[in-house]
Amino acid sequence: MGMTIVDIARIAGVGVSTVSRVINNHPDVKYETRERILDIIRENNYIPNNSARVLKQTNTNNIGILIRGVFNPFFAALLKNISMSIEKAGYSIIVHYHNNVDDVSTLVGFAKEKRLQGVICLGGNFIGVNEESFHGLDIAIVMISVDFKQPKTWKNFSTVSISNEKAGYKATSYLIEKGHKEVAIILGNKQDYSIGKLRYEGYKNACKDYRIKHNLNYVIYGNYDTALSYERTKKFLAVNPQITAIFATADTMAIGAAKAIVDLGYKVGDDISVMGFDGIDIASYYNPSITTIEQPQDELSVVSVKLLIGLLENKVENQHIVLETKLVEGDSVKEKKN
Amino acid sequence: MGMTIVDIARIAGVGVSTVSRVINNHPDVKYETRERILDIIRENNYIPNNSARVLKQTNTNNIGILIRGVFNPFFAALLKNISMSIEKAGYSIIVHYHNNVDDVSTLVGFAKEKRLQGVICLGGNFIGVNEESFHGLDIAIVMISVDFKQPKTWKNFSTVSISNEKAGYKATSYLIEKGHKEVAIILGNKQDYSIGKLRYEGYKNACKDYRIKHNLNYVIYGNYDTALSYERTKKFLAVNPQITAIFATADTMAIGAAKAIVDLGYKVGDDISVMGFDGIDIASYYNPSITTIEQPQDELSVVSVKLLIGLLENKVENQHIVLETKLVEGDSVKEKKN
Repeated sequence: MGMTIVDIARIAGVGVSTVSRVINNHPDVKYETRERILDIIRENNYIPNNSARVLKQTNTNNIGILIRGVFNPFFAALLKNISMSIEKAGYSIIVHYHNNVDDVSTLVGFAKEKRLQGVICLGGNFIGVNEESFHGLDIAIVMISVDFKQPKTWKNFSTVSISNEKAGYKATSYLIEKGHKEVAIILGNKQDYSIGKLRYEGYKNACKDYRIKHNLNYVIYGNYDTALSYERTKKFLAVNPQITAIFATADTMAIGAAKAIVDLGYKVGDDISVMGFDGIDIASYYNPSITTIEQPQDELSVVSVKLLIGLLENKVENQHIVLETKLVEGDSVKEKKN
Repeated sequence: MGMTIVDIARIAGVGVSTVSRVINNHPDVKYETRERILDIIRENNYIPNNSARVLKQTNTNNIGILIRGVFNPFFAALLKNISMSIEKAGYSIIVHYHNNVDDVSTLVGFAKEKRLQGVICLGGNFIGVNEESFHGLDIAIVMISVDFKQPKTWKNFSTVSISNEKAGYKATSYLIEKGHKEVAIILGNKQDYSIGKLRYEGYKNACKDYRIKHNLNYVIYGNYDTALSYERTKKFLAVNPQITAIFATADTMAIGAAKAIVDLGYKVGDDISVMGFDGIDIASYYNPSITTIEQPQDELSVVSVKLLIGLLENKVENQHIVLETKLVEGDSVKEKKN
């Protein structure tokens, strides 16, 4: 915000020309220096004013895929399917993984720097996104697995998503209707303001409607990571023996929770039920198979690519498409025993 | 091979100018037509002579990542780590997934079309690759998870890999030393001439050295897919009740096999042992945890990126680096009961 190339150079302790060389991808900068400058640029969300540079260059057929957050088999499969379809339509795929807090600025910087015609986003929070967010960018933007509570009326970008609140409600009410009254939830992390927050709201709303207890002590943060979910579930169950069901907001975390239950000497399903989310291949081949909220993975990629290409060819307007999820029953959720 | 743009146009039933527009990524070609022409170009391994086009364009900082074959959590994690490191060094990442038989031509076409400075390959067979393969391309090429039996003396590209034959031998001999004399193997597919073939050779050599039976009837093809490995292992065990151990050449396939064993009413480990390969996160959180050959995932990405950047900066020569694997004991392999 208001930062200039001079500020970046001062913080990095180098000359302005060195920063300029890094921004313009000249190879004659030492690896360590380049790394330090890029870190400072990222930390400060500095967006190079490269309109002059862009004008000098020719048009590209580059589509960017912006991926936020930790590794996830669900995103990896989406990435492959989307990439293959977009390539088939004659475009090149430039991928960019990031962990920046400000998704909007990251997208704008990425689009400008790589001179993209379009961007597909996998995940992210996009806090504060609004009608003005991508002003002057004039490219096709489709966000997948990004979900907002607000009415979806924005005309400057598209979203293709499920209703995460509804899905969280469906998962939780299913557990409650199986007789469970002490239901814990595994979320990604506290910084998750989009899909994770909405799944959590679905959980809270179901608890309220069915009048069962819910409070912050019933929340485990697993960072979408199997190992971390395993460790934290193990510790959590040691101090919360009343829990009879756990809703993990990703299958990768459900598997960690299931293993924790086994290692504590309980039986998954019979003693403590586990509900997952995503419907990754491996979940249904777990022992026991994981009951989960299946996302429409193929539909998500097909619909998103079709929409992106329609936008690139100026054949459609920006849209906000909501797809349905499906609760797939495995053997990890059972009726609560008396 | 001698094909011209005129041949492609004739096969596609369109004018030469339409093919030219597709090759040059002009947007004014119908989606279906573009798709048909690209399919014909791929099927015929036609490489556009675009040297004239390249000269007109400016230099790029593009590094390509060429990914062969089916989706695999192991490759997905490598892709993320490698992409982030290469971006940090100031380059853009262009990904290209493919299923072409001819990896060499695919790499050459990809490098020329996207004007790449370097390519990292994840997987592939590269049948017939030799000193002349990338003649005139003059870019940095690093192949990961591509393994050749021949002495590794090539100077025109680099490889970073494990010894797949040795790892296959290690897995199989471990099972045999646990008392198993009837050991089946799950391979990817018959067209796998690189890592899969070498893991199979390691298996065969161990069987020979320990004088236990091995023949084609003991081979299951699982295509690196959990569902397919499940189905085929189930059918296989129904007609081969003498089998007491299975070596799956990928953890994704080991999980399918383990589930098949459970669903047939056996206990994994106690009745039939299962050995995996890769060391993906989820394997150690399976129930029971999967004994596996762990690949040095972090080392593979760090070493490959360092080598690529060294080659780009003309600081190192092409190298063929072999990293070590580690047998990680879980609960899916046990001593054979008498």
